[in-house]
Amino acid sequence: MKNLALILISLSIHTIAFGQTISGFSDEKTQQQRELETIFDSQLDAKNLDTWMQFLTSHPHHVGSKQGKANAEYMAALFQQWGYQTEIATYQVLFPTPNIRVLELKGSKPYKALLTEPELKEDNTTNQKSEQLPTYNAYSADGDVTAELVYVNRGAQNDYDELERMGVSVKGKIVIVKYGGVWRGLKPKLAYEHGAVGCIIYSDPQDDGYSEGDVYPNGAFRPKNGVQRGSVMDMPVSPGDPLTPGVAATKEANRLDRSEAKTIMKIPVLPISYEDALPFMQSLAGPVAPPSWHGGLPITYHVGPSVSKAHLKLTFNWDLKPLYDVIAKLPGSEFPDQWVIRGNHHDGWVNGASDPISGMVSELEEARSIGLLAQNGHRPKRTLVYCAWDGEEPALLGSTEWTEDHQIELREKAVLYVNSDGNSRGFIGAGGSHSLTSFFNEIADEVIDPQTNVSIRERRYASEMVGGDNHLRETHSGNKTIHLGALGAGSDWSGFLQYLGISSLNIGFGGEGPGGEYHSIYDTYTHFVRFKDPGFKYGIALSKTAGRIMLRMANAEVLPFQTTSFNSTLSEYIGEIKSLLNASRSETEQDNKMIREGLFELAKDPLKIYQSPKIKDDVPYLNFSNLENELAELNKDADLMAKVNRKMLRLDSKKQQELNLIFYQLERKLTQDRGLPRRSWYKHQIYAPGYYSGYGVKTLPGIREAIEQRNWKEAQENIEIVRQTLQAYDQQLKAALAIINSK
Amino acid sequence: MKNLALILISLSIHTIAFGQTISGFSDEKTQQQRELETIFDSQLDAKNLDTWMQFLTSHPHHVGSKQGKANAEYMAALFQQWGYQTEIATYQVLFPTPNIRVLELKGSKPYKALLTEPELKEDNTTNQKSEQLPTYNAYSADGDVTAELVYVNRGAQNDYDELERMGVSVKGKIVIVKYGGVWRGLKPKLAYEHGAVGCIIYSDPQDDGYSEGDVYPNGAFRPKNGVQRGSVMDMPVSPGDPLTPGVAATKEANRLDRSEAKTIMKIPVLPISYEDALPFMQSLAGPVAPPSWHGGLPITYHVGPSVSKAHLKLTFNWDLKPLYDVIAKLPGSEFPDQWVIRGNHHDGWVNGASDPISGMVSELEEARSIGLLAQNGHRPKRTLVYCAWDGEEPALLGSTEWTEDHQIELREKAVLYVNSDGNSRGFIGAGGSHSLTSFFNEIADEVIDPQTNVSIRERRYASEMVGGDNHLRETHSGNKTIHLGALGAGSDWSGFLQYLGISSLNIGFGGEGPGGEYHSIYDTYTHFVRFKDPGFKYGIALSKTAGRIMLRMANAEVLPFQTTSFNSTLSEYIGEIKSLLNASRSETEQDNKMIREGLFELAKDPLKIYQSPKIKDDVPYLNFSNLENELAELNKDADLMAKVNRKMLRLDSKKQQELNLIFYQLERKLTQDRGLPRRSWYKHQIYAPGYYSGYGVKTLPGIREAIEQRNWKEAQENIEIVRQTLQAYDQQLKAALAIINSK
Repeated sequence: MKNLALILISLSIHTIAFGQTISGFSDEKTQQQRELETIFDSQLDAKNLDTWMQFLTSHPHHVGSKQGKANAEYMAALFQQWGYQTEIATYQVLFPTPNIRVLELKGSKPYKALLTEPELKEDNTTNQKSEQLPTYNAYSADGDVTAELVYVNRGAQNDYDELERMGVSVKGKIVIVKYGGVWRGLKPKLAYEHGAVGCIIYSDPQDDGYSEGDVYPNGAFRPKNGVQRGSVMDMPVSPGDPLTPGVAATKEANRLDRSEAKTIMKIPVLPISYEDALPFMQSLAGPVAPPSWHGGLPITYHVGPSVSKAHLKLTFNWDLKPLYDVIAKLPGSEFPDQWVIRGNHHDGWVNGASDPISGMVSELEEARSIGLLAQNGHRPKRTLVYCAWDGEEPALLGSTEWTEDHQIELREKAVLYVNSDGNSRGFIGAGGSHSLTSFFNEIADEVIDPQTNVSIRERRYASEMVGGDNHLRETHSGNKTIHLGALGAGSDWSGFLQYLGISSLNIGFGGEGPGGEYHSIYDTYTHFVRFKDPGFKYGIALSKTAGRIMLRMANAEVLPFQTTSFNSTLSEYIGEIKSLLNASRSETEQDNKMIREGLFELAKDPLKIYQSPKIKDDVPYLNFSNLENELAELNKDADLMAKVNRKMLRLDSKKQQELNLIFYQLERKLTQDRGLPRRSWYKHQIYAPGYYSGYGVKTLPGIREAIEQRNWKEAQENIEIVRQTLQAYDQQLKAALAIINSK
Repeated sequence: MKNLALILISLSIHTIAFGQTISGFSDEKTQQQRELETIFDSQLDAKNLDTWMQFLTSHPHHVGSKQGKANAEYMAALFQQWGYQTEIATYQVLFPTPNIRVLELKGSKPYKALLTEPELKEDNTTNQKSEQLPTYNAYSADGDVTAELVYVNRGAQNDYDELERMGVSVKGKIVIVKYGGVWRGLKPKLAYEHGAVGCIIYSDPQDDGYSEGDVYPNGAFRPKNGVQRGSVMDMPVSPGDPLTPGVAATKEANRLDRSEAKTIMKIPVLPISYEDALPFMQSLAGPVAPPSWHGGLPITYHVGPSVSKAHLKLTFNWDLKPLYDVIAKLPGSEFPDQWVIRGNHHDGWVNGASDPISGMVSELEEARSIGLLAQNGHRPKRTLVYCAWDGEEPALLGSTEWTEDHQIELREKAVLYVNSDGNSRGFIGAGGSHSLTSFFNEIADEVIDPQTNVSIRERRYASEMVGGDNHLRETHSGNKTIHLGALGAGSDWSGFLQYLGISSLNIGFGGEGPGGEYHSIYDTYTHFVRFKDPGFKYGIALSKTAGRIMLRMANAEVLPFQTTSFNSTLSEYIGEIKSLLNASRSETEQDNKMIREGLFELAKDPLKIYQSPKIKDDVPYLNFSNLENELAELNKDADLMAKVNRKMLRLDSKKQQELNLIFYQLERKLTQDRGLPRRSWYKHQIYAPGYYSGYGVKTLPGIREAIEQRNWKEAQENIEIVRQTLQAYDQQLKAALAIINSK
């Protein structure tokens, strides 16, 4: 009964949705597009995803591996077979692989770290030892250091602040930190900046090991010897080949000397398992770590320094390695020079089933079905470009080099970039350019969740409501809009969105596919089909979602970018920034008052070393008025645009084409050539990865990070830069309005 | 320099305080009282605390032990020597001690629990095996059960709700739960109510073991075999001897048969160490426990049931055992029939240094100094009664039987009861009757913290500010008032406050004396002087604080109860209750709406068993108007009282005596003979231990618990009962005002 009721709800929603037009499509074309999508859906077959995943994950397929190249060729052949104009774009990039890896604890209880992930008889690809990349962090420095250890929690800046208050220094020490909290690459970077000579990163069992659930192969979580490989390149400065920043790493490219590369770590850094971590963590003396620093090991977490010294020796092979990006084009029937681009990477750290092949096979099936549509006379109006990126894991290498390579063409032609990076069971998640909010929500309303038979938007809403506190439930009730997250770093959209200003979306399902296999030899086909997406039902749901995005963007009469949702999000960001500044001011005032009253001195335990905070500079008031006036003007024009939304569909084709050119170029106006302070590669002024948080996005990064770093002058300068950016954006809106309203 | 600055701040506060009068004292008498306190302070000597603790903790001193009796006699002799009229009040109480204790895991990985705490060569009283009570829970049932295990987190009602949603039942099972969260005795009670046949309680290392810090003897925390003994009597129903509820357990008392006793557990229950817990926890299968249920063991926490069965066998010696309360009186020079009472218990679970002797020795030194004052001609005006309670650990036995024994006299004579129960290094903490807020704060302003040389009030304020979030810092800044906590259960005030309606205070220092020795053989002199209060500096600070309370209450011309702070606290409580009701209403509405919309069904993982919540009855609006009108009337009278605060000190002595009689009887008016619903022993209508939370206080318990249990009719009835209670209280205020304003 219960299920029947749900199906009825679902059907009624479905029906309503089908009765509506699609944004960007006239009433007449809506029906046609829906029929196309019905055929598209009906051609999708989960068995293909299964077959392809088995092949693509049959051997380790990292950058430079035999299987990596074979996978590229395999996919290129598929695309070709489906009617795509396919090429393999090749680049030569710096991708270090380890030669020597030694980590040992000296002293009275010596220990030599295993640095090995054992094979499992339950999983038949875990025994491919000779093909597997050893456990390591790519772009670590070579080094041979012996020093005491200090534990610094996640290795973020606030952890170093806390450490300083405890009177412990990492100068000349090897830092040991937990994974998580901040982007992996910031851990050795901050360790180096604080004077450490080496860095060890371990997977604490509290994060993805036994504390979370049974470990592999009994359950999905990280076994005691599982290690998270991963890049530690300084990607918040710039991703891509460190020897060719801003230009493509072609054979003949001018390369920096490795010593000049800005994004390679300066100290040796090595990831280890929690079994290997235990003796090192037990060797720590000194103060007991603060409660929030504790993890899941059965020990008292101390800060250090350790009684005994640790010895870390690492050397790498620094040869250039080849990249193989698969680029498959389906030229548009009407607007071949307008490109809608779709990508997922194909390289993994080892056999990489969940990361990245689960997303890759979904993209392939989507491309296959669209190829079939084209063969049957339904070729999309705009050009579709399907990409399978190599080298995402080390540093978004494949996508970055390709976007750098084709930057002039892409700036001119790219309408949208749609990314995925793996997929699992559960709830739709989406991030991206906020002018795509309505467009994406319309699609999420029509794709049906394979487990519950309601739309993926309904199910996501249910999950947010159930997971929310009472306040969220009250304020959110009935509001089913999926808010797009802002995009920081983390996958292949960076070159498109942040370097070139191309509207982007990143999507995927998740939340019900548990695991601690990330970047280990246990991320396999066997693990995936047991724990992530049995039967590839969500793989198909992803094909349906992304396929609709591609098809609608390709066939729309008027491109469905909507500036009102961008504007309202922007207003929120500006509001947040002002709150941040005010909170910082009141916190500074309160802290300084408390310092002057001696409260920190009085409250602390005199038997422990603990430095009270120091007086901070006052937080000034900044002038937001020009920015806010600009925003008000922008809001006015966005409202005018919203009012002529359907009118645009009745304009003549020539005007529509003029408008479309403006619309897909709008996101470009959000970039500035000079880029962000201290990192000119990042040109987008609204979204960027955090300079000091890495993965975590910073919105209005120029202003926000300046405030966070208490650089008031730079904050004020960036308020003006953002204002100019919005002004340029608004001028385009005004141009569009002029076209619409012209006789 | 920094320290000097602090001393200067401290001195200036000190000076200001000394310039003020003391509440209840005329300007003339203030100076005299201060001089008395200066002498009192100067006579205190930390060496005495050390000496006495060494004697009192030299052997295990639980109820019925040889050392327990010796301690009572030792202290009685001291009191006698200091000029107190001393007696040892003796009662015969049911106090079970274990005969047989067996806990074992059956099946393929059998394990027999050790149930033993090993002696340590570093601590010379840990080897007194033959004198130690074995590890057990007093008032467990006898039993011999074999069943599968189920893990239920802390064993609170919401844990059972969650368990039910996971589709797991404890019917016929043995429940294993962590210590903490709710009063120990509720764990087996709720287990029984849900159909379990046995209960195991273990000390998770996350709570007071290695997760918190190094374990004893390296550090202060619970070692792997350390066990928390403790009572599981159903004290939220009534404390004291279970065979003589409401009457004294004298030799000749009428006793219930044990089978009729309401407060003895119905199933066997046993506490174990985390080493013993590990194999049992590892045996659990079934769903992975929710994240908030995880602890510090290096395993995946499962809910169960276990694959193998556990066998629990317990039998007890149910003999009556003797109690020895030491009662030492110093008759008042002017008002011998007005008693100011001070108490701390003397029985421990084993050698009990921190709990309770650290508080006991501080009380002794306080009594010694006051005895000396009396001998030197400064006998207090009112009678002081110094008590050392036996049998607090099993069930507040000594204090409860004594208050039941002397209830008529106490109702007539008791002005105040001041409790402590152990002491440590750090910050003053205080709970009690809110009419004592100002009185206590004046004292906290004058006692100097031994580590920082500011007042204990200043230091407590500093700690709250530094520990608070920015909101607290902003709203709290400059407000140095120590808010008294409300008293629930947990120590010997229950008979005084909740049964007899005697104004009470409970005080002690803490926050900087770490430890996991609680109720184990490791709570020793050696542990105490290493980790808790080296040099007994805070022991002396407690003597100074409690001594001032005693001396001021004994010598005050007008008793310094202040109704405005009681009223404002009461207003807060009523506000909280209304918010609770409103929150419950909006949460119920929101939940029911979400249930009807099917959101819980949509959000849940279809591959897991998880019951969605069920529709709840609507929350009605209750009528608070009569209660609020009564409160308004009370506020008016309290304001009038506040205005004549100093005027009262100029009244003639006869009027002052009339007023004093009213004042110290005021708290009695907050009781109702019928007691609280389902527990008539608890007569106080403002404060009670939670029926379903145990230690945790419930303020306005009759109303609050009815709302929490969704018993709307009972809630409305109790609103009226509280109104009547406040009316009776207000009538006394009006009587006092009439006396003050009469010509």
